[in-house]
Amino acid sequence: MNQTPAYDALRARRLQIYNLEAVQAIASWDRMTFMPAGSGSARAAAQAELAALIQTLQTSEELDGLAARAASEPLNANDRTNLKLMERERLVAAAVPEALNTRRSHAVAAASDAWRQARAANDWALFSGPLSTLVEVVRESAQRLGDALGLSRYDALLDGHDRGLNRAQVEQWFGEIGQWLPGIVASITAQQAAEEVLIPQGPFPQEGQRQACLAAMTALGFDFERGRLDVSAHPFTGGTPDDVRLTTRYTEDECLSALLGVIHEAGHGRYQAGLPGTWRGQPLGEPCSASMHEAQALAFERQLALSPAFVQVLSEILQTHLGPQPAFEPRILHRLMTRVRPGAIRVDADEVTYPAHVILRTEIEIALIEGEIEAGDVPALWDQRMLDLLGVDVRGNPAQGPLQDIHWSLGMFGYFPAYLIGAMAAAQLFQSFTASTGAAALDQSSGTELSRALGEWLEDKVWRHGAAMTTGDLIASATGQPLSPTALKDHFQRRYAGA
Amino acid sequence: MNQTPAYDALRARRLQIYNLEAVQAIASWDRMTFMPAGSGSARAAAQAELAALIQTLQTSEELDGLAARAASEPLNANDRTNLKLMERERLVAAAVPEALNTRRSHAVAAASDAWRQARAANDWALFSGPLSTLVEVVRESAQRLGDALGLSRYDALLDGHDRGLNRAQVEQWFGEIGQWLPGIVASITAQQAAEEVLIPQGPFPQEGQRQACLAAMTALGFDFERGRLDVSAHPFTGGTPDDVRLTTRYTEDECLSALLGVIHEAGHGRYQAGLPGTWRGQPLGEPCSASMHEAQALAFERQLALSPAFVQVLSEILQTHLGPQPAFEPRILHRLMTRVRPGAIRVDADEVTYPAHVILRTEIEIALIEGEIEAGDVPALWDQRMLDLLGVDVRGNPAQGPLQDIHWSLGMFGYFPAYLIGAMAAAQLFQSFTASTGAAALDQSSGTELSRALGEWLEDKVWRHGAAMTTGDLIASATGQPLSPTALKDHFQRRYAGA
Repeated sequence: MNQTPAYDALRARRLQIYNLEAVQAIASWDRMTFMPAGSGSARAAAQAELAALIQTLQTSEELDGLAARAASEPLNANDRTNLKLMERERLVAAAVPEALNTRRSHAVAAASDAWRQARAANDWALFSGPLSTLVEVVRESAQRLGDALGLSRYDALLDGHDRGLNRAQVEQWFGEIGQWLPGIVASITAQQAAEEVLIPQGPFPQEGQRQACLAAMTALGFDFERGRLDVSAHPFTGGTPDDVRLTTRYTEDECLSALLGVIHEAGHGRYQAGLPGTWRGQPLGEPCSASMHEAQALAFERQLALSPAFVQVLSEILQTHLGPQPAFEPRILHRLMTRVRPGAIRVDADEVTYPAHVILRTEIEIALIEGEIEAGDVPALWDQRMLDLLGVDVRGNPAQGPLQDIHWSLGMFGYFPAYLIGAMAAAQLFQSFTASTGAAALDQSSGTELSRALGEWLEDKVWRHGAAMTTGDLIASATGQPLSPTALKDHFQRRYAGA
Repeated sequence: MNQTPAYDALRARRLQIYNLEAVQAIASWDRMTFMPAGSGSARAAAQAELAALIQTLQTSEELDGLAARAASEPLNANDRTNLKLMERERLVAAAVPEALNTRRSHAVAAASDAWRQARAANDWALFSGPLSTLVEVVRESAQRLGDALGLSRYDALLDGHDRGLNRAQVEQWFGEIGQWLPGIVASITAQQAAEEVLIPQGPFPQEGQRQACLAAMTALGFDFERGRLDVSAHPFTGGTPDDVRLTTRYTEDECLSALLGVIHEAGHGRYQAGLPGTWRGQPLGEPCSASMHEAQALAFERQLALSPAFVQVLSEILQTHLGPQPAFEPRILHRLMTRVRPGAIRVDADEVTYPAHVILRTEIEIALIEGEIEAGDVPALWDQRMLDLLGVDVRGNPAQGPLQDIHWSLGMFGYFPAYLIGAMAAAQLFQSFTASTGAAALDQSSGTELSRALGEWLEDKVWRHGAAMTTGDLIASATGQPLSPTALKDHFQRRYAGA
């Protein structure tokens, strides 16, 4: 006799929604990769219809009461967690009224247009008004969400990307990093000042780069039976756990951006593919958090790929597919790939200066959402903190400053901290992985063996757990230590020995 | 004040379903083009969920009564036709119970596997049992559909692809063609017996062939701002009117199959793109029928592309993208492309022998569905009629006979006649088009001008009318004559002057 009819009904509905979202995911991937330019508005209408239908199913009244009945059914611990996650999803879906979501769509459309114009004109004033309007809507949504979850506005946004994370925790971690980072950056750049680096000489034909990227994905254990690599204007990992769609972009005068970008996305992709198949379609089978997703990408892109053993693998791949040249020699390539140089642009930043970019925007977006500052205050704050943290002067140049990233123009607040928490988590996971492998074994491993071992370790410690734990609990369970910036600092000091 | 609330509600629901089907169409296209091999079962589950949801929306009880109320609202003629078409869709969607559809899915799965094995083993007996089971289910579905529509079984299946078409009409047309076709084939083959043809010498690199196909699509007025060309195992036209997705396949030892296949699909694609945008999402904005769709493909592939003026265009395209060779000279190429040779395989058949393949399978499937024969009777009938119509002997060789086509194994009955009715309609449309242009103007036109003029003529006479008329009414309105095989016969006699 079935003793869990209410829970089973909720599970079935969740699987239905998952399947509809899987179709949506392929349509979204297609929109960014192969869709012809003139088909955009028809496609937007089609996908909006499916999104609306999914929203209706999520908040459907037939589900009322089911959760209460399911809670008194005999469920094991995982099912109980899964039920809680379902309830949370339903709360979130119902928290923001449709009229507010519609206002948000319009505000995003206006802010996106304005952002593009402002960035081209290098003029913050063009963006400030539409951003203010959008921030108002986001504040209101965050307030509703916070009321439903018992959280402050910014905490409600954080919680949407990383269950249980809050502003106080982020500020403590980021404050600590902000303390030691400038010193480490200064020390490394002083040490590297006298070093010569060799820039690979192009052109690098697109097909050769693509073959190099495919070879790197193979070395990282990517499963091409359930995934692909294609081209899009902005690289991303899309699709589903059963069909992982990575993208990159190529420029013929440079060959490392696409390659390292693909390694980053392959980290996201292996996490996605490694989620627990037995929980497919259920919230417990979803990724743990945005931070944990980023951590998997960075574990591959920064921790593994910049290690001497894996640089050796990349060196061979580059020489095979783009022809030999001195800059592709392993030691020379390693020196180039670990070059630290403060700069204005986040996505071009090395791993050491990168945290400053995240800290900066996080500080400002917290203040914006909590109403402590307004859109017009952003550039002055940005310029000052950029000087403090990295000594980079972008005054009067907002295109190189707060206009560089697209997130805010899309109404995406509360996501940015994941970039740095992910780096912290990646360092802590990799440190545990190497400790478990043993330093001696590690030094003798080839890059390919190292990659295989890392994949197996992460699958066991992280991927197969899905969303069963919060980021903090999962890191503690995987590494035996609470999540903190310590491993990231250790990592910088170990890799850049002079720091 | 809104005087048509019920009709508007029905329209809105139809648009919603259209949009969901547009997302489904892109997922289906992806499944046939880019989806990795291992992702099939997860994708099937996802798309089945969306299909089930669409079915639920189509037959939703909230719509009950709306049609009756809409019928008494003040509608113009087009809206009234649209309302009738909506009612018909609802009737069809509701006619077959879910349990029968499920039985059908299982029977199709078994028949598909058996068909693949039987074809490989050249053994009808392996297919006969599963086909019998499937035919039983199709008979039952057709019976239900026929009861709902007031039609016999096979007429109900025909009606699903071509509103108002019936067995008696098909038998009259095909009987007439069956009378004169053997004589025409004999006369042309006798005349061509002494002619030498030159076969283009490969290999033909895939990228060159792709460029040639793209050039042909451009010459045919295909809009790449709202469409693409990709590769799949079986060529098809997918996507939506706003995003037309053609596919083809390449083999390096042959260069005309892909090119002519793309020209065929480009005809389908231009029809799809040319459907009336003001009726997007409504049944009136759909294609008229399967026959009319096929007619557009054949108007481009056979009527236009085999004309001396357009062969000149193809000759230039082939020489540009695959290099010059004697076989690509216009007159030599034209001779090869109009070569008539009876053979066993439908998809390899020239335009003159092609009707025989359609007549043959149509005769047999009518008898199968109406219960006049059973699956075991098929091979003997096939072999005899193949001898009668084309003098081709495939006795003891069912892989070259009834096992050659996939349709029946998918439960697709009632579609086949569209291949020949489409050829009749294409000939009749092209004859009217050339009459309206004037023979003198036609002879002086370049192939590209001819193509442009044909596209404009078809857009005006056929595409923009969507499903407002039946195939018969649309042909009569476009050509001033009732649909008949006369133009097809005239066309054969004119192009193959010795016939």
